[in-house]
Amino acid sequence: MKVAAYRKAHFNAAHRLYNPAWSEEKNQEVFGKCNNPNYHGHNYDLEVKVVGDIDPETGYVIDLKILKDLIEEEVENRFDHKNLNLDTEEFRNLNPTAENICVVIWQRLRAKLDPRYDLQVRLYETPRNYVEYPA
Amino acid sequence: MKVAAYRKAHFNAAHRLYNPAWSEEKNQEVFGKCNNPNYHGHNYDLEVKVVGDIDPETGYVIDLKILKDLIEEEVENRFDHKNLNLDTEEFRNLNPTAENICVVIWQRLRAKLDPRYDLQVRLYETPRNYVEYPA
Amino acid sequence: MKVAAYRKAHFNAAHRLYNPAWSEEKNQEVFGKCNNPNYHGHNYDLEVKVVGDIDPETGYVIDLKILKDLIEEEVENRFDHKNLNLDTEEFRNLNPTAENICVVIWQRLRAKLDPRYDLQVRLYETPRNYVEYPA
Amino acid sequence: MKVAAYRKAHFNAAHRLYNPAWSEEKNQEVFGKCNNPNYHGHNYDLEVKVVGDIDPETGYVIDLKILKDLIEEEVENRFDHKNLNLDTEEFRNLNPTAENICVVIWQRLRAKLDPRYDLQVRLYETPRNYVEYPA
Amino acid sequence: MKVAAYRKAHFNAAHRLYNPAWSEEKNQEVFGKCNNPNYHGHNYDLEVKVVGDIDPETGYVIDLKILKDLIEEEVENRFDHKNLNLDTEEFRNLNPTAENICVVIWQRLRAKLDPRYDLQVRLYETPRNYVEYPA
Amino acid sequence: MKVAAYRKAHFNAAHRLYNPAWSEEKNQEVFGKCNNPNYHGHNYDLEVKVVGDIDPETGYVIDLKILKDLIEEEVENRFDHKNLNLDTEEFRNLNPTAENICVVIWQRLRAKLDPRYDLQVRLYETPRNYVEYPA
Repeated sequence: MKVAAYRKAHFNAAHRLYNPAWSEEKNQEVFGKCNNPNYHGHNYDLEVKVVGDIDPETGYVIDLKILKDLIEEEVENRFDHKNLNLDTEEFRNLNPTAENICVVIWQRLRAKLDPRYDLQVRLYETPRNYVEYPA
Repeated sequence: MKVAAYRKAHFNAAHRLYNPAWSEEKNQEVFGKCNNPNYHGHNYDLEVKVVGDIDPETGYVIDLKILKDLIEEEVENRFDHKNLNLDTEEFRNLNPTAENICVVIWQRLRAKLDPRYDLQVRLYETPRNYVEYPA
Repeated sequence: MKVAAYRKAHFNAAHRLYNPAWSEEKNQEVFGKCNNPNYHGHNYDLEVKVVGDIDPETGYVIDLKILKDLIEEEVENRFDHKNLNLDTEEFRNLNPTAENICVVIWQRLRAKLDPRYDLQVRLYETPRNYVEYPA
Repeated sequence: MKVAAYRKAHFNAAHRLYNPAWSEEKNQEVFGKCNNPNYHGHNYDLEVKVVGDIDPETGYVIDLKILKDLIEEEVENRFDHKNLNLDTEEFRNLNPTAENICVVIWQRLRAKLDPRYDLQVRLYETPRNYVEYPA
Repeated sequence: MKVAAYRKAHFNAAHRLYNPAWSEEKNQEVFGKCNNPNYHGHNYDLEVKVVGDIDPETGYVIDLKILKDLIEEEVENRFDHKNLNLDTEEFRNLNPTAENICVVIWQRLRAKLDPRYDLQVRLYETPRNYVEYPA
Repeated sequence: MKVAAYRKAHFNAAHRLYNPAWSEEKNQEVFGKCNNPNYHGHNYDLEVKVVGDIDPETGYVIDLKILKDLIEEEVENRFDHKNLNLDTEEFRNLNPTAENICVVIWQRLRAKLDPRYDLQVRLYETPRNYVEYPA
């Protein structure tokens, strides 16, 4: 009798899409305006899904205040109002596409979340473009 | 060739989170302000997912007017503008967390829905906190 | 060159609509299911509009972090997870309709906001029903 | 390490629900006001989900600009501002229910999408009624 | 001490933009794909704003259930699931642009609403295109 | 008989809040994390309101396709996927707060819009923080 509990969060960040192994022309061709060397930015919206059993004593799958604090510590404090390419270790050598950001967030949360829970992360880069891991 | 059909609904209710087997201190520690003895409340948003085959005569998985009426009868008429702890049988002895409300709604709909359909219920307690059953 | 700056906030509360000067029958007739003596509840969404000149040094009408803190202190800390009828002084003798809650919030913010600003408050009781003061 | 990438789109169309094998009475009984012979219409919202591996060179599952162009070509250009019953080949002999429209869109995209990707389509007929294929 | 009370509603309809005094070419040039002779359609979202004093006995500007019923009678029952050009008297000789629909709805509500209230109507044709009367 | 017509648009940009006349300490104290020297970013949502009379021949206040193209030319093409501080002339010497961006957008549109129309611009920096000019 598995139940999923979801918590939404958000952070605002700058980024640039860029592959250092490629020429400027190839970067421009593939990433277009996302390749602006001066960066652009987004309001990232995050949905974190945690799956587990209902604890009969609390009626909770997980206390969402605890999940909220975990997201704050592992995601918001690190990425909010940051330049992902310049200000974070994770994306110094990893292209900060929505896909890669989503997997990195999943890895950070997974490392701290009790292994009895399943975890999935959805990340909105814009209201029309978003990704989910694992699929 | 299974298709899912979804219908949204909503109800407004008061509730209090509380475990009668615990001391006041423990209830306060675990449930915090959700343990207010005078209750607080929410606009609950509900998404009901029904999975089945497309009926070749109607082009419907299920007539959504029928699903709407079922939700009205089994959920809205029972829970809307109610105090879940005091006014409903279901939560007299069951803590009305989002998880438990979601499972109860699923059980009520499951009992009335044709067994050829699969059923899943998502319940938003707030726009940032929501649950889903089965996961 | 007046500019408006807006900040959204929210709180979850229980309430009951009731006029003690009326009979039970009249209360039921006018307030219907909102008159449930055991209370029901809502996720109230709040939009606070502050109008003023742009400060040439900051580029701000008002620092929205200051407005956020003011709303937290004057509204969220007082009303969130409360029973408006039982837990607040403001609605002990004032019917907690959306209109009255909106005016009370306006009065509380107005008393603390620098008089050089104009102030307007919009309060959503549900996504479909909301009020605004002053009109 | 499969990741899902989503793209939203929309189109506005007129339609009528109708089964030519049935009497007028039966059509009216089953489809009600959706059977208006002069048509009615909707703002259809579409969510297209593509599942695949992250390309290590781009950091993308799929370039969402390419997915956007594919949706424009296969869906928007064909269905936007059209009468689905009269102006499209697909629904000349197929009842344009949300379910059937969703499956047709899935088939059109599937035919053009690289087979290494999994594909799912969600279609909102209204904000409260929507369908998904495959379930 | 005027307060505004708002109620949202919606209806789904087909329409065509067309000026019978113009040539086909001119209609096509001005109205483009909105001029499709077979019609297209929309989910129209409506926001009705009523301004008045708070009644000290009820705490209401207006009972929103009464406003809801008025909108149902004057707007939804007439326009929902209709072809505005063919099925309604109002738009037989009036081009059903969002602007004209909005004014017609205002006129219908104004005729039935107590003159002590001010009235404003906002109509969304799509989430990105909407109009308001009076401005 | 003035009617308002609205059009929404959006752009994604990086920015930094900073007053060059101030010390680093003062900038940090006033602008906090918005003062990150490496920039952060937002999905800016824009609502443009144009007020005028309904043209009796078209039924339009303004052709929203024309307004859409004007916003694209004057706002989106200039600011989308840009660093407002580095890539735009307007904010080289003007702090790119939401208030200042909103006024700049109003000025750009006002210069191109027929003087018979009134114009107002609302700019969302986040879903919870937004501004409007003129107030």
